[in-house]
Amino acid sequence: MANQLRKNAAGRLVPLEVNGKPAVPYQGVGNYRSNGRKSSPPIASCADYPSDGNKVVPDLKTALIKAGIKDGMTISTHHHFRNGDLVANQIFDAAAEIGVKDLMWFPSASFPCHAPIIQHLDSGVVHHIEGSMNGPLGDYCSYGKMRGLGVLRSHGGRYQAIQDGEVHIDIAVIAAPTADPFGNANGLTGPSACGLLGFALPDSQYADKVIIVTDNLVDFPCVPWQIQGNYVDYVVVMDKIGEPEKIISGTTQITRSPDRLLIAEMTAQFVKAAGILKDGFSFQAGAGGTALSFAIFLKEMMKELCIKARFVRGGSTQYLVQMLEEGLTDYILDGQTFDLEGVRSMRENPRHVNTSPFTSYNYHGKGNFASLVDVVVLGATEVDINFNANVVTHSDGRLLHGIGGWQNCLFSKCTILPIPSFRDRIPVIVDEVTTLCGPGELIDVIVTERGIAINPLRKDLIEATKYAELPIRPIKEIKEEVEEICGGKPEQPKLGNKIVAVTKWVDGTVLDSIYQVME
Amino acid sequence: MANQLRKNAAGRLVPLEVNGKPAVPYQGVGNYRSNGRKSSPPIASCADYPSDGNKVVPDLKTALIKAGIKDGMTISTHHHFRNGDLVANQIFDAAAEIGVKDLMWFPSASFPCHAPIIQHLDSGVVHHIEGSMNGPLGDYCSYGKMRGLGVLRSHGGRYQAIQDGEVHIDIAVIAAPTADPFGNANGLTGPSACGLLGFALPDSQYADKVIIVTDNLVDFPCVPWQIQGNYVDYVVVMDKIGEPEKIISGTTQITRSPDRLLIAEMTAQFVKAAGILKDGFSFQAGAGGTALSFAIFLKEMMKELCIKARFVRGGSTQYLVQMLEEGLTDYILDGQTFDLEGVRSMRENPRHVNTSPFTSYNYHGKGNFASLVDVVVLGATEVDINFNANVVTHSDGRLLHGIGGWQNCLFSKCTILPIPSFRDRIPVIVDEVTTLCGPGELIDVIVTERGIAINPLRKDLIEATKYAELPIRPIKEIKEEVEEICGGKPEQPKLGNKIVAVTKWVDGTVLDSIYQVME
Repeated sequence: MANQLRKNAAGRLVPLEVNGKPAVPYQGVGNYRSNGRKSSPPIASCADYPSDGNKVVPDLKTALIKAGIKDGMTISTHHHFRNGDLVANQIFDAAAEIGVKDLMWFPSASFPCHAPIIQHLDSGVVHHIEGSMNGPLGDYCSYGKMRGLGVLRSHGGRYQAIQDGEVHIDIAVIAAPTADPFGNANGLTGPSACGLLGFALPDSQYADKVIIVTDNLVDFPCVPWQIQGNYVDYVVVMDKIGEPEKIISGTTQITRSPDRLLIAEMTAQFVKAAGILKDGFSFQAGAGGTALSFAIFLKEMMKELCIKARFVRGGSTQYLVQMLEEGLTDYILDGQTFDLEGVRSMRENPRHVNTSPFTSYNYHGKGNFASLVDVVVLGATEVDINFNANVVTHSDGRLLHGIGGWQNCLFSKCTILPIPSFRDRIPVIVDEVTTLCGPGELIDVIVTERGIAINPLRKDLIEATKYAELPIRPIKEIKEEVEEICGGKPEQPKLGNKIVAVTKWVDGTVLDSIYQVME
Repeated sequence: MANQLRKNAAGRLVPLEVNGKPAVPYQGVGNYRSNGRKSSPPIASCADYPSDGNKVVPDLKTALIKAGIKDGMTISTHHHFRNGDLVANQIFDAAAEIGVKDLMWFPSASFPCHAPIIQHLDSGVVHHIEGSMNGPLGDYCSYGKMRGLGVLRSHGGRYQAIQDGEVHIDIAVIAAPTADPFGNANGLTGPSACGLLGFALPDSQYADKVIIVTDNLVDFPCVPWQIQGNYVDYVVVMDKIGEPEKIISGTTQITRSPDRLLIAEMTAQFVKAAGILKDGFSFQAGAGGTALSFAIFLKEMMKELCIKARFVRGGSTQYLVQMLEEGLTDYILDGQTFDLEGVRSMRENPRHVNTSPFTSYNYHGKGNFASLVDVVVLGATEVDINFNANVVTHSDGRLLHGIGGWQNCLFSKCTILPIPSFRDRIPVIVDEVTTLCGPGELIDVIVTERGIAINPLRKDLIEATKYAELPIRPIKEIKEEVEEICGGKPEQPKLGNKIVAVTKWVDGTVLDSIYQVME
């Protein structure tokens, strides 16, 4: 790849061009300013749309043809069905039938259920994917088989990239559990109800053409309209768009590991000791088993101390729903439902509020919700001694996860990563992370089963927990102890020189490069 | 005014330049296409906003200064408080104190309560107003005292103008009955609750700077966020932002005039005879006394015939709320609450749905709700023998009303104007309307106390009502009868050559010119 590289503000070598477009190297947290203006979609006219509001066309292939699908276009989808999505594969099957090539697939995330896209990558129907690649597609990219670069953006970064015109979506295909013929749509009702459709918001606002695919067409008006029909060009009805029972991934169960339970409990104790746990506070906990367990420990503390949260942020699960229903929080501000209890609650309870990557995470807005959260608890695959963290690759270099809302959440008032100190006898605390996803200055606390490390930048947290009965230790000390147990540092991954993907920062700059795994 | 005029597709002479910007003459319904792209606001960065989300500044003047107010800027406001607004006058008082000149005020409508703006027009603080001018400001404009041209746009046309970049808002000031320090805001709760804030939506989306003014600051999150804090720069708290009891104007009472009651009843009978009144139908009736009475007659018919509407469109009043609560409609789709029962219902009932000029009326979207409505009942100041109608000036040429959603509603499947055939012994049916607001091809039926006239273009309606026991007559015949009663045609208004305002069509083209009244 004849692409110039430059060392960015994090000391990482990154390409100056990504998939044929100029890219700005990361400049440090809060340092980059775009002097551009937001993307401006073409002006439509009602004269070109059916006056009776009926935008239904016979099938997906017809809709794609009417939308003008052609070689090289960018097609977007959302991932609210997670591993139960039944639409994305059909789009590219239809594209293959139509005979177009070199499409860019721009999902808000992809999952193992999307493995059939590999055949379209091989055949040339799909050129490359920009978006989280969980599982087989991540592997495909890792081993250097994809023609373009994978581009990993946070949920907020995806909104930012669309809003700022860095990614121009030609055709957005939005799977919607309920819709009307005008294209108003929501995720709350219907046989495939998945909760909300927030990830598809920027696609609806900025794509040239928008196709709604539903298996539950209702008479106008579909209320509420999480997606507004005034942005929609065509509506397609099919038998089944998703398997909502599969939105529950393995990560939305409480951990049973005694070590991880210990970590979760220590995390809750830290939050209490640091003075964060007080009336009107707020928290967000990711969907991992440890984060969920943290939420349960925290809940018990809240009940004991008669403390009520002002809001908790989802991904929502049955555990957050219970807190809302028991009056332990005024609101759930939810970006993505992780189980069917979350879907039910959002449908029934006006205090279970759907949010979007615009409200919650977009860094190129006039503020966002993420920085208002008192404490956020997130996972990581690796953390280094400067508190930099990795969430997309493993120590062997393989790309296995997306960034999700992780980067965006780092702007919380207190970011805690509860992580095991090693996994499969490979240390998780390292000298330098394989892939940089989160700059250390934003990561405040690491909680492991061997102790808690506080970022030296957070003198306030160090001071607040000075007399707490918690095993607070320097991160280097924990790291050295773990290396002793594991028999040394992790092996260096066997990587080639070819860059196969990049991670973007929340402002659209390039944070790090991901290299081909050689094996 | 050395401004070139051209005859547009309606045969009206219109200027080719309006307030220093090129203007496109009206080209006929559905004929004009913009080949432009939507307005693109500057890209913001969270790094420039307080990370704790607190955007509160001490007062309105401070907010205006921080927003960079300077000579010649455009300042926008909404009119959900109608004649009870307490904020707009304060903005221009503050601007006068700051010492800026030549501002353009861009309200979604102005009312008699805004008469104090006249002093700022006189002193040069305000250069001109683009927006509906009800009452004293309309007079001021009519008599040629305003420096720039008044520009009258429909609610949808205002959204279109902002969206398309025809009007660039420098600073939007949004009065909000409830808001949080981040700028999330709604009209549902608080001492000044006015229902919704839909008219301010485009202002929030497209203005460079957005100021929320509230008298009910709540902790984050303000739910629901009808206005999203992510668009907001500053929040100002003041004692009282509006007098919601004044949103009830004189026009939101049922008529007591026997003639108008007759007209209202005939209108309802026509709707029934034409086959429009059937299960799942929809209607919109304006806030005038006759339109309200129509809704009540229709309601009785619906009960009698066991017919339920799918949706009714507001401006909502206690009468529509009763229909919703009695199960006579599935939904109220509401753009503006006209009384406090409307406010209550919108707050309490998820089937009383708030809409915006984007969803309802924007002609430069991918369809809008207005064309989906089965029948709409609207007022008019004049109608001519070609079914063209006027809603802004009287026969004496004085500019007295705004367009509101009137033009947008004409796209309904059946547009009916129930009007008295004369007012104050001046015929309402004329040879040619003083000001053209609605092209005759979109106006289907005129109902007067002397008979019903169906537009000859609507052969379907003529056919459907052929055997109905209704006084259906040619419009010319009604006109001649009325002229006989009134002793002739209305006097020609005494107008000068100076154009003082223009009416825009829903697509942003110039539909007609309004001339100075000489008196």
